[in-house]
Parts: sequence; structure tokens; C-alpha cells
Amino acid sequence: MTGKAAIIGGGVIGGGWAARFLLNGWTVAIFDPDPDAARKIDAVLINARTSMPSLYDRPLPPEGALTYAASLDDAVSGADWVQESTPERLDMKRGVLAQITAAAPETAIVASSTSGFKPSDLNAEGGRSIVAHPFNPVYLLPLVELVGASETCARAADILEGLGMFPLTLRQEVDAHIADRLLEAVWRESLWLVHDGIATTEQIDAAIRMGFGLRWAQMGLFETYRIAGGEAGMAHFLAQFGPALAWPWTKLTDVPDLSDAFVAKIAAQSDAQSGHMSIRELERKRDENLVGLLRALKQSKAGAGQVLLDHEARLPAVGPSDAPWVTLSVQVPSSWTDYNGHMNESHYLEAGSKATDCVLDRIGAGPDYVAGGFSYFTVESHVQHLAEIHAGDRLTAESQILAAEGKRLHLFHTLRNGTGAAVATHETLLVHVDLTSRRACVPLASVAARVATLAQDHMARPRPAGAGRAVGQRP
Amino acid sequence: MTGKAAIIGGGVIGGGWAARFLLNGWTVAIFDPDPDAARKIDAVLINARTSMPSLYDRPLPPEGALTYAASLDDAVSGADWVQESTPERLDMKRGVLAQITAAAPETAIVASSTSGFKPSDLNAEGGRSIVAHPFNPVYLLPLVELVGASETCARAADILEGLGMFPLTLRQEVDAHIADRLLEAVWRESLWLVHDGIATTEQIDAAIRMGFGLRWAQMGLFETYRIAGGEAGMAHFLAQFGPALAWPWTKLTDVPDLSDAFVAKIAAQSDAQSGHMSIRELERKRDENLVGLLRALKQSKAGAGQVLLDHEARLPAVGPSDAPWVTLSVQVPSSWTDYNGHMNESHYLEAGSKATDCVLDRIGAGPDYVAGGFSYFTVESHVQHLAEIHAGDRLTAESQILAAEGKRLHLFHTLRNGTGAAVATHETLLVHVDLTSRRACVPLASVAARVATLAQDHMARPRPAGAGRAVGQRP
Repeated sequence: MTGKAAIIGGGVIGGGWAARFLLNGWTVAIFDPDPDAARKIDAVLINARTSMPSLYDRPLPPEGALTYAASLDDAVSGADWVQESTPERLDMKRGVLAQITAAAPETAIVASSTSGFKPSDLNAEGGRSIVAHPFNPVYLLPLVELVGASETCARAADILEGLGMFPLTLRQEVDAHIADRLLEAVWRESLWLVHDGIATTEQIDAAIRMGFGLRWAQMGLFETYRIAGGEAGMAHFLAQFGPALAWPWTKLTDVPDLSDAFVAKIAAQSDAQSGHMSIRELERKRDENLVGLLRALKQSKAGAGQVLLDHEARLPAVGPSDAPWVTLSVQVPSSWTDYNGHMNESHYLEAGSKATDCVLDRIGAGPDYVAGGFSYFTVESHVQHLAEIHAGDRLTAESQILAAEGKRLHLFHTLRNGTGAAVATHETLLVHVDLTSRRACVPLASVAARVATLAQDHMARPRPAGAGRAVGQRP
Repeated sequence: MTGKAAIIGGGVIGGGWAARFLLNGWTVAIFDPDPDAARKIDAVLINARTSMPSLYDRPLPPEGALTYAASLDDAVSGADWVQESTPERLDMKRGVLAQITAAAPETAIVASSTSGFKPSDLNAEGGRSIVAHPFNPVYLLPLVELVGASETCARAADILEGLGMFPLTLRQEVDAHIADRLLEAVWRESLWLVHDGIATTEQIDAAIRMGFGLRWAQMGLFETYRIAGGEAGMAHFLAQFGPALAWPWTKLTDVPDLSDAFVAKIAAQSDAQSGHMSIRELERKRDENLVGLLRALKQSKAGAGQVLLDHEARLPAVGPSDAPWVTLSVQVPSSWTDYNGHMNESHYLEAGSKATDCVLDRIGAGPDYVAGGFSYFTVESHVQHLAEIHAGDRLTAESQILAAEGKRLHLFHTLRNGTGAAVATHETLLVHVDLTSRRACVPLASVAARVATLAQDHMARPRPAGAGRAVGQRP
């Protein structure tokens, strides 16, 4: 469904909600007395429009209409959803929510973004609001905690799923819901570490994103510990690390007693959650997720991805300069495979593209040359598939310069599996460009000279079978 | 450097260390009196060999030799690094570390994997060990906390970087180091939530991986909160959420006083860490990282990735069945761009491959057909680049069936930017296969009939320019 959403309070969270609704085709009315509200919301919307649609391989619906209302009453008039995102002050929130309740249609869902107040706190002076607590950036992170009247939460959950979110409905209200209780524990412990001079903010952030943060992006705490318990399972993990609860491993020293009944409760919940997979299966799933996440961070040069790039730069580059030129050697990640159970075609071109980069590096047109304002762009490519290759197989590329004249560089890569059999060929034509004008030009003398020497050598070699093929051409 | 590593204690952590050293070319000797140790280590090594090498686009060095030593003394003889990973019992660790100190070369680094004990605890009866605390799975997660003698920690850090790890050296020892203090706080808080019946283990895991776990895979706690503070920065965030420290938002109620001096200390450390980027730049970096992570999870169908897939399935599919056939519409993610500042060539083929999937779906050869044991495999493709396209641009595909005879299906996709200009063409030949025999065969009657009807219509249209081109062919 789409409808009208009223956003009361236009900070980072209100703006994030506005983006989530608008980009899913809802009409949005914002009310915020701050004269600077529109500028702040615009900044959030620019970020959201840049990122959120690129999560999907289908277009989102046409963006809804955005208006700034002159009053709260105008904003909530005719609304299907009213989201309150004012500062974390109970008196203010109570007043705003009472006003919303009076002015909004009776059918509207009235929800507060509060990080910590319970519905019973918020509705103490009348009102019928639930808590719908999102996480910043609201337009990218799916979690929304729902707390309050169960019938309203059920309707709210349906709507939130339609916005691409993950509603998590609490069984009962509690200060700070679930996620913020965990966050608050980490936050308070972190403040102590900085306060006591044990660690800097940067060290704490590194301790998170180089380690358990990666685990928590794909599995949570309990599933991770279930795996750590190994074949013996969750009860074994509790037996192993239970004693630590008595030790001063955090400032949080008031801990529940690990009675047999409590251990059994945790183990049973963990079985219900993850028992459909063996520990080996969970490990493989975790590793597959982690490799995908780490490769994504490598692409954006962030956190653990930068560590991988640094390590990779220290590994010896493939292949000597004799024939055949080996220009790539990579183990196929499972994230490169598709529904046919083999490497997807786009990763053949990814592999070939990396082989091309290696050739460019060897002719002196690597990163330093690119930084100087010149590069090669691909004009066209032809990929021929000869055999399947699977996750875990070793994929290597051998490259040959077919021709090099002026601006043009014509390459041929043969991709092989671990046994040396050819699985694909990739023929590609590149043109040398000036990165400022984005136009073709001849390479600088240093590159031109190296290309000429290498090309003379390579062109004396036999022309590979398949070079010059058009798609569908009979052999 | 490579050398010899002795692994004392062969559980999940010892096995992970063994894998990290072996796959980086070190010789490894394991000592563990458990008769089942080799089987357990083998299981870890299989996981490590499947995942770790696929992080890199270069080959790791040849794997080192693995031996099982008959005694601790044999294992540590001639070792450059000795890693103790026995159970978390102080008396046992003290004894083992004393024995290692007596038997290992004086030049060897002796390190304990302890989750919580301090070097002064471990070395109380003599010994010269440091703490090198890794995170499971050790062969994928880069973090290692180093605690102890600074000269030894510096040497250790060099070696760990050579293994692709991220050494984090503590300024001073503290129970549970840094990361485990944070983990222990979350763990204890989580136990309370389960104990009090507020949440199940599955709900707690969802609260983590659908929300802040994604943030923490790429930025830590403080950098995330710096962004949340918005333009006003870290001090503003502290002013906003400082009062919550006095509220019962966790069981951790003993909190540091947010004095002016302490707030200034945090703000200064945060400036030193992140001050080289504006809040807007940090937001964009965060969003870019998150889109990459979320797309990776979509690929492995895990956590938030599954939420995206479910949402995508509810979005209307592109294009009607009239001409031209629109078969893809996607906003270019920044993770699809490369060092030339435009979309990398492999993602043109990725886009074309998704367009092909859409065509297959429309001829009745979608997921249900594949589940029935038949599919189409790509035989060859030709991609022609006509113009650049950039992050944030809308990329659409229009598709035409060029020919369909028997097993063969010949397609042509035209990729366009947001203005409708052609940026690339993708010509591709597919063959219908039996997924059991992996051999070509004619499609089932239902698909054959739909293809024939569509092909007749499409083949009456003008043949697109560029069809049948070979690489480098003059126009």
C-alpha cells in the first residue's frame, strides 16, 4: 500500500523516515517548527536518493510528493501513518502525541521513534501511540522495533514490510526496547574505557569493526556463540564461558544466575532459532557471508576491506614476464556463483577485467599513470564460455597482446581452471584516453615504447583460437 | 616473513590460528593431547581453504607443512611463534606457558589467545608471554588484540600484519582487553533479556543483524554516533543522549560522570579519529559501505539481504510486453564503479545478465523452470561500450530476441542511461541445458512455444546496429 505519512520532527531520524516513505511512493507531509528543517531534510533526501534505490535490481515506485505543513494539525490531516521524531524528552513527546491523537484520523497509526520510552510512558496522559523505533540511516537499515497494542503493531508491521523494513515486535515493553539496551551497555562500557584511559575512541571503533562487527552484520550474538560452542552446542558454550560472568570482564557486574533451568531455556531457544542447520552448515554460511561482506568492504576501501587491500599488495604478483603471461589467479568465491550452480557470466568479465588491469600495470599504465591523468577504457569485449567453473576452483588468466597501434590495445585472455583446462576466453579492445577530456589520445612515450616491444614479441606467437569471433558465428 | 608456528591447544581457536599461518606459507606444528584434535583441526582447515583464499585477487603463498607433535617440547622446538589456545583456566594456562617458556627458543614470540586474562596474570609464575587475542573465525576476521611487553608486541604486530591481520595494541592491560569487555556487556544484557522473558535469542539476533550490526561492520560506535550528532558533532550527541546514562536503559547502572573535561576528551579523540572528513562525507562513506554490504548479503541471502530480496519481489517488475521490451532498470551503485570514475565493464555484463534473466522469466524459463531441472547457459557474449555511465545514474535495458532455433536462443540488449541514450550493447547466445547431465537439449514444449511466438514478433523488427560484430571489426 501507499498513502500519506505525516512526519512530526524533521531531524536525522524524521528525515530518514520521510525518505523511506517518499522513495516507496508515499505522500509525505513534514511538520517541524525549525526554520532550518527543509535544508536538513533535503540533505537526508539527497543521501537517500543516492543510496537506497541502488539496493534493488528493480525500480522503486515513482517518488511521492513532499510538502512542509504550516501546523501539526495540517500535517496529520488525512494521514495513514503519523511518525513522531522529536527530541528524547518525555514531557515534549507526551504533549506532541496528545496533539496528534486529537488531530489525526482515528484510523491512522500513530508511532513514536523514541529510543527508550515505553508506550505506557508516552500514553500516560491519554493517546494511543505505539513505538516504532528505527535505526539511522532509516532509509538503509531495515530494523524497526514495534512496541505497544498488538493489533496496531500488526497493522504497522504490514506497512513497514511494504517499505522494505524488518519489524521486530516486542513481547512486552521495557525501557530502551531491545537493541538500545544492547547499544547502551556497549556505550557505557566504552565510555568507561575512554574515561579510564584504557582505549581511545579510534581503538574502540577498530575493536568493533575489525572483529565482532563483521560477525554481527550477518548473524547475531547467540547464533555466533552457538557456532563457537562447536559440535557440543550452546550448552557447552555456556559451560565454557559461564564462569566469566563472575569475573570483572565488564562494569556490568549484576548478572543473572546460570541455573540449569536458565541454561536449558537458552539452549532451547537457540535450537528453535538455528537447529535446522548443523554447526558445519552454520560455519559455511557464516564464512560465505563474511567473504561477501569483506569483498564488499574491499571495494569501498573501508575497515577490514582496507586491511585486505594492504595484505594483497604485499602478496607476490602473479606470473613472470615470460610466455604465457599469467595475469590473474583467484579462487572463485561462492558469491560469484548463481542459480545454475556455477560461476555467473559477469564474473568471467570481472576476472578478465582484472587480467587487463595486470597487463596495463605491466605496460606502465597502472595506478600511478592513471593518477597522472591518462588511462585505457574498454571499447568492446567478447567472452566465450567453454566449460563450467565452480566455487572454490582456482581460476587463472593468461594474456596475449593481439595488436597495439596508436591509441588501440587489443588483448586476448584465456581463463583456465585448476587443472589448466580453458574455461573461457575474453577478447577485448581498449583505447587510450585523456581522463580530463575523456577523449582518445595516443599514450605517453614510456607506455608506447613498452607496448611496442611487448606487442612485437606477443604478435609473433600463434593467434589464439576464437580471436575475432562474433556471437553465433559458426566455427 | 614466514617461519615455524607452534599451536598449543587445537580447538576452534587453535585450528583457526593454524589455518591463518599455514595459508600464509608458515610451517605449523600442533600439540594437543586430545585424540580427536586432528579431526577437529581438519574441519577448520577445510573451511579456511574454502573461504580465505577467495578474499584475494592474488594467490596466497604455497601452503606450509602441517605436523602433529608428540609433545609440547617437540612442537615449540625451533618455533618463531608459539600460540597457546587452551581452555580459559588460569592455572592451566600458567602451567602451559611456563612449559613453553622453558622449551621454546628465546627469540620466539610466546602468545596466549586468552579472552580475558592479563599478561600479569599469565606470567605470575615467571614466563614472558603476551596476549594475542583473535576472533573466530581466525582465518577471516582481521582483529588481534595485543597486550604486554611493548617491544614484543611491536615484533608481533609486524608478523600479524604479514598474515593479513589487524593488530590492535592496548595501552595498558585490563581484564578482557577491549573487545571482550564490549562483548561481555552485550552478552550479560542479552542474558537478562532472555532471563526476564523480554526477548528470545532469535529476536536479540535480529535486533543486532538487521540494525547496528550492519553499521559496526564498517564503522564503529563512536564514528557512527559522530554522524548521528549531525553537523553539531560529537559534543552535541553527548548532550543529546547523555541524560539517558542516568536512565535504566541497561542493567549497567554504574556509569562515568559526563563532566565537561570528559566530554572534551571524547570530542577531541573523535576529532583526531574522524575530523579529516565532514559529517556529509562520513554519511556518504557510511551509505556507500552499507549499500555494498547489503548487496553482498543479498547475494548470500542472509539477514538484511533476505529482507531486500523479499521487498524486491513485491516491487512491480519492469516493462510491459510491448516493444521495446524493458528488461532491467537499476540505479548504478557506487560499488559498481572503478578507478576510472565510471561503471566498470564487468557490471555491464552483470546488467545484461539480469536482463537475460528477465527474458528467460518471460519465456517461462524462470526459477520454477530451473527448479524442474532445465535452464539456459550462456555460450558467448559481446559487449560494446558507447558512452560512460556513473554512480547514481539510472541504467535500463531493452531486449530483443534475434533468433531462437532448437536449443539456441540469441538475444540483444541495449543498455541506456537516464536520458535514454544508449551506453552499451550486449549480444548473447544461450543454449538450453538439462541441469542433471549438464548437456544441451531442446526446451520443454511450453517454453519452445512461447519462444517461437515471441521470436517471430521480435525478428520482424529492425536488426539492431552492432549485432554480429566481432571485437576490433571496422564498422
